[in-house]
Amino acid sequence: MNIILLHPSDFCNDTRVSLGGRRLQHVLRVHGAVPGDRLRVGLVNGPGGQGRVLSLDERQLLMEVELNDVPVEPLPLTLLLSLPRPKVLKRVLQHATTLGVKRLVLMNSYRVEKSFWQTPILEPNNLREQLLLGLEQARTTILPEVLIRKRFKPFVEDELHGLSQGDCKLVAHPVGDTPCPVAIQQPCTLAVGPEGGFIPYEVEKLQEQGFEAISLGPRILRVETAIPVLVGKLFY
Amino acid sequence: MNIILLHPSDFCNDTRVSLGGRRLQHVLRVHGAVPGDRLRVGLVNGPGGQGRVLSLDERQLLMEVELNDVPVEPLPLTLLLSLPRPKVLKRVLQHATTLGVKRLVLMNSYRVEKSFWQTPILEPNNLREQLLLGLEQARTTILPEVLIRKRFKPFVEDELHGLSQGDCKLVAHPVGDTPCPVAIQQPCTLAVGPEGGFIPYEVEKLQEQGFEAISLGPRILRVETAIPVLVGKLFY
Repeated sequence: MNIILLHPSDFCNDTRVSLGGRRLQHVLRVHGAVPGDRLRVGLVNGPGGQGRVLSLDERQLLMEVELNDVPVEPLPLTLLLSLPRPKVLKRVLQHATTLGVKRLVLMNSYRVEKSFWQTPILEPNNLREQLLLGLEQARTTILPEVLIRKRFKPFVEDELHGLSQGDCKLVAHPVGDTPCPVAIQQPCTLAVGPEGGFIPYEVEKLQEQGFEAISLGPRILRVETAIPVLVGKLFY
Repeated sequence: MNIILLHPSDFCNDTRVSLGGRRLQHVLRVHGAVPGDRLRVGLVNGPGGQGRVLSLDERQLLMEVELNDVPVEPLPLTLLLSLPRPKVLKRVLQHATTLGVKRLVLMNSYRVEKSFWQTPILEPNNLREQLLLGLEQARTTILPEVLIRKRFKPFVEDELHGLSQGDCKLVAHPVGDTPCPVAIQQPCTLAVGPEGGFIPYEVEKLQEQGFEAISLGPRILRVETAIPVLVGKLFY
């Protein structure tokens, strides 16, 4: 927890917050804070700043906060991701948020097992929890937008054009020689397939929408390794 | 398992192998192979190739193998890594191997908890198991070399110079403005600190050895996210 994220419901008045639960426990056990200490805070989807500890005990942390720091903007990146299995999904949600993905589309594709769609992680509150963990790690405040699209074809044919207009459009595909571009200066929509990759039909459908297939070389990377490699090359 | 890795002890004669255990189970349950099928195989630290299934049942898989493919070389990269906590270590060993790290030095630093050094994952057989999983994912055969260095100062002062001679030397450090170089054309030694980073003394010690501090921008990445971002920028 590199930042303590605040929600509107935490505020007692304009500048005073009262926190309990996981955040209180973290400040008690990890920071070992005492009254007077200053901690880094940020309003979810808003500015960052500092909180001065007024009091804390096992039930409540009271802080006086100043929120004057301009938030770190997310990267101009939409990540289209074939739904991974639940254990991986949890990590990928956190890592993509930490990396600064602005919009994440969890979509179906041929090699996605149907059972993956049943995971409780996709419920809004659980999803949000993973995103918040990603922000806490990154020390940022702006939540990514998450879209869930359970049908590949209608999404790609009817919606993707509008979503990716004006973007650099890339699909990671192990077959092919075109390397991933480096440090691009424009917004990007990046599609990443499931373990085993997109099937050729799906790559063709994306190419029809203007996506270029790029490869990361001879090694086959896990989705959770490929995403930071790609985002790093494109934007870091 | 994108490749079935073979060990010298698997060979009945020059071209015939007999496999059991995890590899047999994978071929039975995931490949669903039948006699006559061809599977991608590779000799650990040797060439890749194909195996033709001669017979398989619940006890044994017999294959005739041809090993004529030149192995994918590891990247000319030595990764100096502050020992992460065991759960992360397991993943990082796999991911670093999959990414193609040639040599991995697990070292101590101030913010490494002493208890981390007690993990059974550091025992040679367990370590090797994680590396093999990384190779199986990458579809490569060359194991990275792993060095374990439990004392920071003697390692950095006495051994690091010889280890990193002629390399581009970088230390990832959140404080600083120098960005990570891109697509370098020379060998590299890259130091990555623990959660919370190296302490200033440690960064200075590395700088004395010619290491340049580089930053990945305003977001604080987990070690397991930072490594693929850095390796991706340097070599992919």
